[in-house]
Amino acid sequence: MTKTLILGGGGMVGQKLANRLGPDANITLFDIAFPPNSAPGVQKTGNVSDPAIAKSLASERFEVIYHLAAIVSGEAEADFDKGWSINMMALWNLLDALKDEHEASGGAYIPKIIFTSSIAVFGGPFPEMIDDEFLSAPQTSYGAQKACCELMLTDFSRKGFVDGISLRLPTICVRPGKPNAAASGFFSGIIREPLNGQTAILPVADTVRHWHASPRSAARFLTHAAALDTAKLNGRRALNLPGFSCTVAEQIEALRRVAGQSAVDKIKHQPDETIMKIVSGWPRNFDPARAIELGFKAESDFDEIIQVYIDDDLANSASR
Amino acid sequence: MTKTLILGGGGMVGQKLANRLGPDANITLFDIAFPPNSAPGVQKTGNVSDPAIAKSLASERFEVIYHLAAIVSGEAEADFDKGWSINMMALWNLLDALKDEHEASGGAYIPKIIFTSSIAVFGGPFPEMIDDEFLSAPQTSYGAQKACCELMLTDFSRKGFVDGISLRLPTICVRPGKPNAAASGFFSGIIREPLNGQTAILPVADTVRHWHASPRSAARFLTHAAALDTAKLNGRRALNLPGFSCTVAEQIEALRRVAGQSAVDKIKHQPDETIMKIVSGWPRNFDPARAIELGFKAESDFDEIIQVYIDDDLANSASR
Repeated sequence: MTKTLILGGGGMVGQKLANRLGPDANITLFDIAFPPNSAPGVQKTGNVSDPAIAKSLASERFEVIYHLAAIVSGEAEADFDKGWSINMMALWNLLDALKDEHEASGGAYIPKIIFTSSIAVFGGPFPEMIDDEFLSAPQTSYGAQKACCELMLTDFSRKGFVDGISLRLPTICVRPGKPNAAASGFFSGIIREPLNGQTAILPVADTVRHWHASPRSAARFLTHAAALDTAKLNGRRALNLPGFSCTVAEQIEALRRVAGQSAVDKIKHQPDETIMKIVSGWPRNFDPARAIELGFKAESDFDEIIQVYIDDDLANSASR
Repeated sequence: MTKTLILGGGGMVGQKLANRLGPDANITLFDIAFPPNSAPGVQKTGNVSDPAIAKSLASERFEVIYHLAAIVSGEAEADFDKGWSINMMALWNLLDALKDEHEASGGAYIPKIIFTSSIAVFGGPFPEMIDDEFLSAPQTSYGAQKACCELMLTDFSRKGFVDGISLRLPTICVRPGKPNAAASGFFSGIIREPLNGQTAILPVADTVRHWHASPRSAARFLTHAAALDTAKLNGRRALNLPGFSCTVAEQIEALRRVAGQSAVDKIKHQPDETIMKIVSGWPRNFDPARAIELGFKAESDFDEIIQVYIDDDLANSASR
């Protein structure tokens, strides 16, 4: 059984991943807190940016480490120190501690690290379609922190201390659970709320185009990356992942096909200048040729993304 | 008088810069050591990666800070921990301390920071000509450290704590002084040694193309950046600087024009597989359109680069 650590294991993607790995997997979940009815695994709580925690976790010599721990974009923008501490220094401390273990093992211990980066490493002006050669010029603290982590992980890997890969996830949609404060929350909300019989607010024009993949795809990306031979990455260890690009209008049409006009009628358009401005700075579409060639797969239409939510999360949602 | 700090003020470029600013400027030079007959300025010695030093320097509230302190590419590759400490964490500590001063001043103190990055932030495969949109994918620790610094400086600047700019310097040629261990050293050596009546080793084929600017241009880039309105950077605060692209054969032809066949005869071709491999991973040519539009200027032929060495450094060299 592969000895596995999931940092950020209490979060939505961490829980999906732990469930995907299953109850028989040898998993430790680390987070500041866990939801009730958590996915299976040994739970540890603490602050991921504490160097003593990094040392302690490294000393357990996990074979595979999923590093999903982060504060979200909005919080990283509002709390600058916390953002750099959790989103950047925590990975630095972990890599530094893992390098010590690597050296203590005489070079035998080389953990696989799968790091969730983000399309926030990109900043405008954008082409209509972002290819694998597009430069990383983030315009948020969150994006800058993720980009620094990619550089560190690549360099520690190039030196052979660890074996890392950075996955630039699309926006995860449909997120289960309650609405959160993320500016991107409405992309999920306009689907999730109507399917739960509730009203949803659409704060932007329905011409807005964005890049989506389901939580199920996110968990699949992670396990696919863990099994990947990183020699195939040719030293470029940060990957733009596949997703599905569509406009809000196309999202709404898919909802109509899946759940009918009554669901669509639950969406109320209330323009919000702040959110419109943030969203206008986001990528709209990608050509993730390298990741596709490496076998990463996402949904190929938005109806399928909605269906994944219905299959995986709607029942749990209704029972709450 | 602008209160100015030069970190790495004891190095070759730092000394050129201090001399360019002149004896009447209000300059503090910080480094681990200084050459005899140092350029003018108050000298302070210490380890730039010590957080207490960063705090102490920040508390002096310099208006302009030139951050040139670094260990070179070869040393960063050989001593991983020292490279990340000096080349990355030192700037982090300084930015963190400057942010504290910014906040203590009620937001009034916003130092200008000019950071010397490098074309090492780029990694192959390269196009023949690298434009301003080419991605940063470093393949050395030095390049990764410089790229992280660019990201941090941009984010601290975007938030208004400091006002920074990162300058991706060409290879500086002709470097005065004795040969050093840098893999790029021969680009200077094949000009400098013959002009000083000594034999020079050429370890690569004369078809190798590279990107050069003189030490005088480097100092001029720095003062030009200090005077620049960074609003013109539109949030992309890392700049590829102008230089002159030529092959080693073209360097040698220029040497022949300037100093005759007897100088050229001092160059001995001794192929070195290690250096050939390193150099093959370096950029060859740039189209630095943004920097040119912002008024940065370099030499426009290699004869001029040689003449700058003769005018600025050869006499000092001969007197040693």
